[in-house]
Amino acid sequence: MTTPEEMIRFIADLYPICRSITGDGVRETLRRVQRRIPIEIHEVPSGTQVFDWNVPREWNIRDAWIKNPRGEKIVDFQRLNLHVLNYSVPVHEKLPLAELKTHLFTLPDQPDLVPYRTSYYKEAWGFCLAHNQLLGLEEGEYEVLIDSTLEDGSLTYGELFLPGETEEEILISCHVCHPSLCNDNLSGLAVCTFLAEELAKAPRRLSYRFVFIPGTIGSITWLALNEENTKNIVGGLVAANLGDPGLFHYKKSRYGFGDVDRAVRQVLADAGEEHRIEPFVPFGYDERQYNSPGFQLRVGSLTRTPYGRYPEYHTSADNLDLVKPESLVGSLRIYLAVMGVLDGNRRYRNLNPKCEPQLGRRGLYRMIGGDDQGRQRELALLWVLNYSDGQHGLLDITERSEMSFDLIREAAEALLEVGLLKEIA
Amino acid sequence: MTTPEEMIRFIADLYPICRSITGDGVRETLRRVQRRIPIEIHEVPSGTQVFDWNVPREWNIRDAWIKNPRGEKIVDFQRLNLHVLNYSVPVHEKLPLAELKTHLFTLPDQPDLVPYRTSYYKEAWGFCLAHNQLLGLEEGEYEVLIDSTLEDGSLTYGELFLPGETEEEILISCHVCHPSLCNDNLSGLAVCTFLAEELAKAPRRLSYRFVFIPGTIGSITWLALNEENTKNIVGGLVAANLGDPGLFHYKKSRYGFGDVDRAVRQVLADAGEEHRIEPFVPFGYDERQYNSPGFQLRVGSLTRTPYGRYPEYHTSADNLDLVKPESLVGSLRIYLAVMGVLDGNRRYRNLNPKCEPQLGRRGLYRMIGGDDQGRQRELALLWVLNYSDGQHGLLDITERSEMSFDLIREAAEALLEVGLLKEIA
Amino acid sequence: MTTPEEMIRFIADLYPICRSITGDGVRETLRRVQRRIPIEIHEVPSGTQVFDWNVPREWNIRDAWIKNPRGEKIVDFQRLNLHVLNYSVPVHEKLPLAELKTHLFTLPDQPDLVPYRTSYYKEAWGFCLAHNQLLGLEEGEYEVLIDSTLEDGSLTYGELFLPGETEEEILISCHVCHPSLCNDNLSGLAVCTFLAEELAKAPRRLSYRFVFIPGTIGSITWLALNEENTKNIVGGLVAANLGDPGLFHYKKSRYGFGDVDRAVRQVLADAGEEHRIEPFVPFGYDERQYNSPGFQLRVGSLTRTPYGRYPEYHTSADNLDLVKPESLVGSLRIYLAVMGVLDGNRRYRNLNPKCEPQLGRRGLYRMIGGDDQGRQRELALLWVLNYSDGQHGLLDITERSEMSFDLIREAAEALLEVGLLKEIA
Repeated sequence: MTTPEEMIRFIADLYPICRSITGDGVRETLRRVQRRIPIEIHEVPSGTQVFDWNVPREWNIRDAWIKNPRGEKIVDFQRLNLHVLNYSVPVHEKLPLAELKTHLFTLPDQPDLVPYRTSYYKEAWGFCLAHNQLLGLEEGEYEVLIDSTLEDGSLTYGELFLPGETEEEILISCHVCHPSLCNDNLSGLAVCTFLAEELAKAPRRLSYRFVFIPGTIGSITWLALNEENTKNIVGGLVAANLGDPGLFHYKKSRYGFGDVDRAVRQVLADAGEEHRIEPFVPFGYDERQYNSPGFQLRVGSLTRTPYGRYPEYHTSADNLDLVKPESLVGSLRIYLAVMGVLDGNRRYRNLNPKCEPQLGRRGLYRMIGGDDQGRQRELALLWVLNYSDGQHGLLDITERSEMSFDLIREAAEALLEVGLLKEIA
Repeated sequence: MTTPEEMIRFIADLYPICRSITGDGVRETLRRVQRRIPIEIHEVPSGTQVFDWNVPREWNIRDAWIKNPRGEKIVDFQRLNLHVLNYSVPVHEKLPLAELKTHLFTLPDQPDLVPYRTSYYKEAWGFCLAHNQLLGLEEGEYEVLIDSTLEDGSLTYGELFLPGETEEEILISCHVCHPSLCNDNLSGLAVCTFLAEELAKAPRRLSYRFVFIPGTIGSITWLALNEENTKNIVGGLVAANLGDPGLFHYKKSRYGFGDVDRAVRQVLADAGEEHRIEPFVPFGYDERQYNSPGFQLRVGSLTRTPYGRYPEYHTSADNLDLVKPESLVGSLRIYLAVMGVLDGNRRYRNLNPKCEPQLGRRGLYRMIGGDDQGRQRELALLWVLNYSDGQHGLLDITERSEMSFDLIREAAEALLEVGLLKEIA
Repeated sequence: MTTPEEMIRFIADLYPICRSITGDGVRETLRRVQRRIPIEIHEVPSGTQVFDWNVPREWNIRDAWIKNPRGEKIVDFQRLNLHVLNYSVPVHEKLPLAELKTHLFTLPDQPDLVPYRTSYYKEAWGFCLAHNQLLGLEEGEYEVLIDSTLEDGSLTYGELFLPGETEEEILISCHVCHPSLCNDNLSGLAVCTFLAEELAKAPRRLSYRFVFIPGTIGSITWLALNEENTKNIVGGLVAANLGDPGLFHYKKSRYGFGDVDRAVRQVLADAGEEHRIEPFVPFGYDERQYNSPGFQLRVGSLTRTPYGRYPEYHTSADNLDLVKPESLVGSLRIYLAVMGVLDGNRRYRNLNPKCEPQLGRRGLYRMIGGDDQGRQRELALLWVLNYSDGQHGLLDITERSEMSFDLIREAAEALLEVGLLKEIA
C-alpha cells in the first residue's frame, strides 16, 4: 500500500517543472507518471479544431528575468517559474520602471506572495512578483528577458484505461497544466497516479479511465477526440486540491443523483470524515466540460478545500509546505473507497423472497433466541434479504439501512455463499 | 411611470361610491377605470344562469337613515355607505328599539368601527353602526328608511385584453363590489388599472387579460360566459389588499408549481422583500373559482396583508388612512416585475452544447486569466449555456443558479446576440 | 363500548398460561379468545413445509424445578413459567453447580428479574432466574426436572374474517406465543380481540382479517398456507406492546406511503397524541414476514413503547403491574379510529366541478355574509368540493386541508346528501 512518503516524494519531484497547457513541462510530467503507471501519451497538433476551440500553439520557455538599473537580476524564472506570466511571448528589451509596471502582476493583499497568472488566448508578456518587492523598485531603466517560444507543436495529454468485467467506465480526470503549485494540480496528479497503481493490482468489475490533461482545453480536446468513448462513462471524478489539511468537499455532478454522487457521500459518511457536499455549478475545473449539456457525464469533483477558498491558492505559497503527507494518503484512501463502493455496488435477487429464510440452519444466526441486542451483522443480512428484490443494489440498501457499505457488502457475500442470493446484471 | 400620488388620487376618487355586486356603483367605477384604460363594460341580465348560480336582481340605493324617537338622523347612508346592509330591500317604517336591534350589526370588540355586511342571497334589510353608538340608543320608536330597489337589471363587469406575441394568457382579476373600503377592493382595482396601463405601453410576448368583476358571482359569471377563452390561460393573479403597509403574502395556485407561482417567489426574493408564501386553500377571493376542479387555472393571489388578518378589514377603518401611497406603488412595481419575469421566461437552446464555447473571442470573457473572483456576469453566462438544453427556461435557470432573473436574462440576451443561443417555442 | 376493566381482566385471565410457539398453551389461549369472538382455530401438523421452514414438533410442559443440595425447590415452574427455557427438552438428573450453571440464564444488569429465553431450533434445556439468586447458590449437587415433551403434533393459530362491502382487506396480526408476559403479547392479543368485537357490531366498507399466531413461524405458516388470500390485503397492522404507559410508536410499512401508514399518522395527529413515526426496518415482529420482498404487504406496526426499549421487556417485570387499563383502552380507541379512517376513506366526484355550487340555497352556508370568521364546517365543505376531482379520497383531502378526518368525512356526507357528490369506486 502507498505510503505518505512515496506520495510527497512524487510531488516534490514534479514541483520544479514549469508546466503549462502545452509544452515540454507537461511532457516531462507525464513521463514521470509513466514510471509508475503505463499511461499512453498523446500529442494533438496545434490548430486541431476541438469543438468551438483550436489547439493553441505550443509554448516553451528556457529562461526569464528582470534586471534592475544596476544590472542585478531581481526576478528570476530559474528560482521560481511562477515569476513568468504563463504563455508569455518572447521579449528582450530595456524599458523604464513606469512602462515595466504595466507588465507586472502582484497581490496587494498578500504582499509577500508571488501570484500565478496566465495569458493563453491573448498574446502578452509579463512577470509576477511579491507586492512588497514591487513597492521597493527604484526608478530607472530595467532590462527584461523572456526566452520563450510560441510555435506550432502539439498539446500533450496522458491516458490510462483499466478494463474491468463490464464495459461501464468510471472517468478519473486531473489537470496537469499548472507550474510550481502543489495543492492545485500536483496533489490531484499524485492521487490519480497512485489510485491507478492500486486499482491495477486487483480484478475490477467496472472499467476505469484516467486522463491527465491540461485544464479546460485539455478536457475539451479529449472530449472532441473521444466522443464515442464517452458512451460507456457512467460517472467520474475530477481530482484536485487533495493535499491540504482541510475538510473534504464534494461538488456533485450536474445530474446530482448518480452512483458516484451517492458513493462519495456514503464513503465520507462511513469514514466518519466531516465533509461538505455542494450542488453542481457550471464553473470550476474540468467537470464544467464533462457536464456540458451536450455530454452530461455524471462527473463530480472531490477535493479537500476547493479552489479559491484557501489563501495560498494560485500563489507561491501553494508549495511543498502546504501539502501534508497524511492528507495526501487520506485522500487516496477515500478515492480508493469510493471506487470500492462503485465496484462493489452489485445487485442481487433474493432467491427465497417469501418470508425470511431460516438463517439459523445455515449458520448465519444466533442459536439461542432472546438476546435482545440484535447484532449488526444479522441485521445487515436481513436488510440485504429484504431489499434484494431486483430493484435495489447494495448502495441503495446501504443508504436505506443507514449501515456502512462494508457491512452490507459482507452480508451480501455471506448470503451469496449459502445460495440465498443470485447476482443480476 | 406611475406616481404614488396618481394611485392614491385614483382611489380617493372611487372611495365614496356605493358599490355592490350589481348596480350603478359598479358601473360608475368601471367608467372611471375606462378613463385610464380601454376596458370593455359588459352587462349580464339578471336571471342568466351561470353554472349553479343565477345572476341576481340588480340592487340600487339612493338613501337610507335611522331617526331616533326625537326625529334626529342618527345613522346616515349619505355620510358612510357602510351603514346600510349591502343589498338591503327597501323599507320605511317605525318600530321600537328592541325590534330595530334585530336589524343592527356592530362589532363589540371594535366598538368605534362600523362593520361591512351584506345579504346578497337572502332578502333582508339592516344597518351597520358602531357598537358604542348602539349602547347609547335610548328606548322609543325609531323611523328607518332604506330607499333601495332590487329589480331585474344586470350584472356589470369590465374586461381588457392585451394581446401578445403568443396566445398564452395571464389572467389578472380584481373584485369591484365593495363600497367604501380602500384596501380590500380599491387597492387591487388601482394596481390592476395602472398595471394594465403600463403593460399596454410596450410589446409583450404573452397576452394579458384583466377582469374587473364583482366577487364570487362575477368570476362565476365570467367563467360561465368565457369557458372557451380559459383554454389559453397559463396562470394568473387575483389582486387585493395591496395598499396597506404589511408584508407581501402570496397564496399559491391549487397546482402550486405554475410559472406564476414561481415567478412571484423569484420576484419577491430578487427584490429583497420579506414575504410569506402560503399554500392554496379553497376559500378567499375569486381564486377559489378559478381553481375549482372543473377549471384548475393556475391562479394565485398576491396581496400584502391577506383578508381578515388586519384589524381594519371589513370595517369603516379600511379607509384612505389605511392605504399608503408608497405601498400602492410598491405593489404595482412587484406586479410589473412578476409580469416581466413571466414575459421574459423564454427558453433557448445552446447551439454549442458540447463543452463550453470560447467566450473570450466573442468579447464575453475576461482576457487575462488568474483573477480568481469569478464575476457574476460571467457566471450567469455559464449558467445559461449549461442549462439551455431544451428543457430549462430562464426561470428554471434563475432558480438553479440562485442568481437574479435580471442577471440571467441579460446573460441570455448577450449570448443570443453572439449567436450562441436560439430561442425555442 | 369496551371498559378498561374488561381488558385488564381478559389479560389477567391469560397471564398464567405457559404459551410457546406450539402446544396447549396457545390452544387454551385461543379458546379463551373464542369466548368473545368467533375465531377459527387451525392446526398445522409438525413437519409441514412452509417456505424455507418446517413446522416444528409440538412442545408441552407439565412441570419443572431445580432442587438445591438440601432438596429444596429453589426454582419452580409452577410459580413462574418464565423459569424454564422455552422449548426445553425433558431432563431429570443430578449435577454439580458448575455444570448446572451452563444451563442457567440471568440478567446481571437487572439482577432481581427473571429473563425470558427460548431455544426453538436447537435442542437444549435450561432455566432462567434472577441473577441475585444465582449469586447465592451454594456448591453441591443439584437436581433438575423438566417434565416436557417435544413430539409430532401441530402448530395452532386462530383466524377471524369480518367481511365488508368490498373485498379489500385489512390484516390485523398479533403474536400469541409468549408465556407470562403482559405488555409483549397479551396487550396486543387483548386489543385485537376487543377490536374485532367492536368492528363486528356495525357494517363495514372494508373487510378485516385477524390472525392470532405464534411469532415468526406463525406468520410464515399463515402466509405459506394462505398465499392466494393475500391478494386482497391492502394494508395492515401488527399489534403489540399496547398496554404500557408510553407514547405511541408507529413503524411504517416497507412501502411507507400506504393507506394504513397515512391513516395511523392522521389518527394520532387528530387525537392530539404525542407520538413517533419510524421508518420500516426488516426486523421486529411479524411485519418482517408480511413485508418480505415476495409479499410486500403494506403492514406497519402500531405499538406504545416498542420492543426492547422498555426495561421490563422480556423479563418477569413485564407483568400485570406494567400494563395500565387506561393505556389498553386508549390503544383500542386509536386502533378503532384507524379502522374508522380506513373504512371511511371513500372517494367522491364533485358533480358541480365548475366554480363552487351555491351552498346557501342548499342550507349548507351561513345566510348573512360578512362574518369574517369562516366556520370550520364550511371550510371543510369547500375542501371536499375542491378536491373531489376523481383523484383524491377523503384521507388525501384531510391531509391537504390539515383538518381532522371526522370534519372532512362529515362534510362529505353533507354534500352527498344534497346531491353534490357521487361516490366513485
